[in-house]
This record gives sequence, structure tokens and C-alpha cells, in this order.
Amino acid sequence: MTVAYDGTNYCGWQVQPNGVSIQSTIEHAIAQICHQQIRVTGSGRTDAGVHAIAQVASFSLQSWRASANDLCRALNSKLPSDIAISEVLDAPEDFHAIRDAIGKRYRYQIRIGGVRDAFEYKYRWQVQGPIDVEAMRQATTYLLGKHDFASFQAAGADRKTTVREVRDLVIIDQEGRAGAPSQSRYIAFEIEADGFLYNMVRNIVGTLIEVGRRKQPPSWVKHVLETADRTQAGPTAPPNGLFMVRVDYTAWS
Amino acid sequence: MTVAYDGTNYCGWQVQPNGVSIQSTIEHAIAQICHQQIRVTGSGRTDAGVHAIAQVASFSLQSWRASANDLCRALNSKLPSDIAISEVLDAPEDFHAIRDAIGKRYRYQIRIGGVRDAFEYKYRWQVQGPIDVEAMRQATTYLLGKHDFASFQAAGADRKTTVREVRDLVIIDQEGRAGAPSQSRYIAFEIEADGFLYNMVRNIVGTLIEVGRRKQPPSWVKHVLETADRTQAGPTAPPNGLFMVRVDYTAWS
Repeated sequence: MTVAYDGTNYCGWQVQPNGVSIQSTIEHAIAQICHQQIRVTGSGRTDAGVHAIAQVASFSLQSWRASANDLCRALNSKLPSDIAISEVLDAPEDFHAIRDAIGKRYRYQIRIGGVRDAFEYKYRWQVQGPIDVEAMRQATTYLLGKHDFASFQAAGADRKTTVREVRDLVIIDQEGRAGAPSQSRYIAFEIEADGFLYNMVRNIVGTLIEVGRRKQPPSWVKHVLETADRTQAGPTAPPNGLFMVRVDYTAWS
Repeated sequence: MTVAYDGTNYCGWQVQPNGVSIQSTIEHAIAQICHQQIRVTGSGRTDAGVHAIAQVASFSLQSWRASANDLCRALNSKLPSDIAISEVLDAPEDFHAIRDAIGKRYRYQIRIGGVRDAFEYKYRWQVQGPIDVEAMRQATTYLLGKHDFASFQAAGADRKTTVREVRDLVIIDQEGRAGAPSQSRYIAFEIEADGFLYNMVRNIVGTLIEVGRRKQPPSWVKHVLETADRTQAGPTAPPNGLFMVRVDYTAWS
């Protein structure tokens, strides 16, 4: 299934002892429709407040006779408005949303300057200006390609390898919502890789913003990368600006 | 003060026995900053789920020595993120946000067609297509000018006069948010009048959508208006698409 969600009111994708998760909400809807208690596997965990335009999740049903399309419609009728399943597809029996993912794309939205905004704060990191966007663009070039991204992994995380390949990293200009205060500038980072370490996007964004604030030159990002030391990088950007945009799989049909 | 708010998580502008209101939240912030329990008067009540880009509210403080600007900053530091005061101005002693208003403008946002959207539902009425926007545009012409709008007043409301002057009523095309499903069309009604009856905007929108669905011809709106009978008009559009955009006062300075 492909699923979009506004993460504002959830404790994140994954089932947690306290708080309502996206995963448990979807599993509950499946239980209501299919009368089966099953586990749904997301392509990646998103933290509290992080959103998804197109998260992919896999699950196995015992003897479900209706079509995937009917299941999609039925689940949407049971889900709260801030979770929307856009597609359910039949997959090969051994399909696995995490293991089979060959690439992912995230967007991180920022609003630079201007007064408080009662609407955007859920979907953008509000950053005080001035921000040198061109300096950040220069800094992104050091992150493209295959590198050890250990400096950008959350402290305490323990992955077998911290080498990842960043295939695309761009800064795009965006329109604000209709009626937004015009003193603000809206930008988004879009970053695509074969995989991401825990908090990698938020740590990259927090580091690039240090360059944007001219606290560090663009080449500092190359230095941070080479040290492979989390303490060298910038702070972690807050969760609310982050969107999981796309997950790629090899075609099976 | 001019204040913007996302009404999603509030029971509306006005203080209610159950639920948290915008008004009480602002009054609480004023009490924290100024140590005075005072009443804040909004230019108009907005219902649960209705938003404001620029609501205007008046209040009187006893012996407050700091500037209006400082008060604005201090209040924002105490308010939750979904309420943002954009300006506080000193007003003449007899200024009253309701009585002195000479005009108001509302926007009502709609999303036509497409799949469920996990983000837009808080800020738009999701309407199934097709919708004949040109037919709705024709219908709006009957509502312009000074009329008895009794047909568009919520049942049970009791105002001295139900005559209002609609000064502007346009349907504008909008961009969807970045990454929104492209099958949808985004439109907004903008309506300006010397004043509004209770639920008038939502009843006008609900009536125009009947025309958009081709259940009624554009000229039916003229008939609805002339009957001055609420039961003749279309259903009330839901609150989440409605934004208070502007309140006008005669200049006092």
C-alpha cells in the first residue's frame, strides 16, 4: 500500500507503548475490515511530527477475497482524515517494504523570516533570516555520491554500515500558501539516496542551515563528512518540516 | 489586535463551557503577561474548525506601560503555535471590534475531485466532481448588491435585519499544495460584505455548489434569495474550508 499522512497528531510511524502511531491506526483499520490481526511493515519509520506523501507498507492477509482496490476504499472509510491510502496493489508473496526498497526520496520544507504563521508551523521549520541559499547550494555538492555518512547519523544508532549513496540533493524555491505573510521565503531540500541512516535528512538540513547562516563556509560540510563524527555536524532540524516523498522498488510485473 | 489562527483544534472563537476557544486562549495569555483578567471582543465569532487569516479583536487594559509592539511579542511567546498575533495597535478608548466594523471578507476553499488528501482536509471542503465552475460564476451575480439574505441565515438565528450588501463575490483558481494529487482542481470563493448573518458564507457556498453540480440552474439562486426562506437554499458547507480574511474599519488616525 502507498499511504500519505499528516504526522502532526501521531507519535510516529511505529507502534509505541504510549501515543497513537500511524502503523497501529492502519493495523486497526485492517482488523475492522478483514477481521485479521496482522502487522504492517513500513519502508521506513518516521518520527513523531514527520509526514509522508507516499510511504510504502507491506502486509500479508489470509484468504482475502475482494480486490486490492476494494480494500483500499474500505480502509480509507475507516481511517481518520489525516491518513489516506492512495493505492493498494497485489505483490509477490515474498515482497518486503524495507528489504526490497532500492531508493527513497525525502523533502524538508523551510520558511525563512517573516512573522509567526499559524498554519505553516506544522509543515515547515521556521528559520530566522538572513539565510544564504547559494552557500547552502554549494555545500550540497560535497554530499552527493557514495560516502560514509556516520557524521549525520543520530547518536546511539548502530547500523552495520554507514555508507550511503546520495543520488540527488537540490534546494528548490516554493510558493507559500495562499494568504501567507509575504516577507517570508519558502524553500525545500529534496534528497534522494539508496537508503538513509536514522535522522540523516534532519542532520544534513541542520548542518546546511549552519552554512546558510554563514557560521561555517560551504567547504566545512566536506570536513564534517570526512571526520565521520556526529559531534562535528550541525544540530538536528525539527521533525515537522520533513516529508517522505517516494520509495522506489524494482518492478515485479 | 490582528490575529491569525488555525481553527482545527478549537471549539471556535467564542468561550464555551466545553472545549478550548481561541478567545479564552488569548485571554489566558493576556492574563499571564499583564496580570489582568479581561475580555477580548472579536469582530465576529468563528465556529469550530473555521480559520482566520486576520481576525480583529479589541480589549482594554488598565495601566499597561509597555508598547503595543512589546505586548504583541510577549503574547506570541505565550500562545500555542496555531494562534499568531500579527499586530497590536493602540486604539481610541471607544473602539469596539464588532460595532465599528464596516466590512468583512471571507474565503471559502474547495478541492474538486481526486483521491483523499491527508493534508488538505483541514483547510478545504472536498467535493466530488464534476463541478461546473462557470455556472457557479453566473449564479454569483444574483447575490451581488443589497438584498435580504434571510434564506442564507442559519435556522434559529434572530437578527434585527437580514439585509446585507455583498460588495464582492468571486471564484478564484488556486494552486494545490506542493505534492498534492494532480487530479484535483482547487478553487476558492471570496466574498465581501458590510456584514454577514450567522452561517451566511457557508450557506451561500453550499447553495452555489448545488448549481455547480447542475442540480439547479444559476437563476435558481435568484429564486432562493427572493423567497427569504432558509429551507429553499442548499446545505451548509462544512466549517473547515472557511477563512476570515479581512475586517475593515474607518481609519481613526
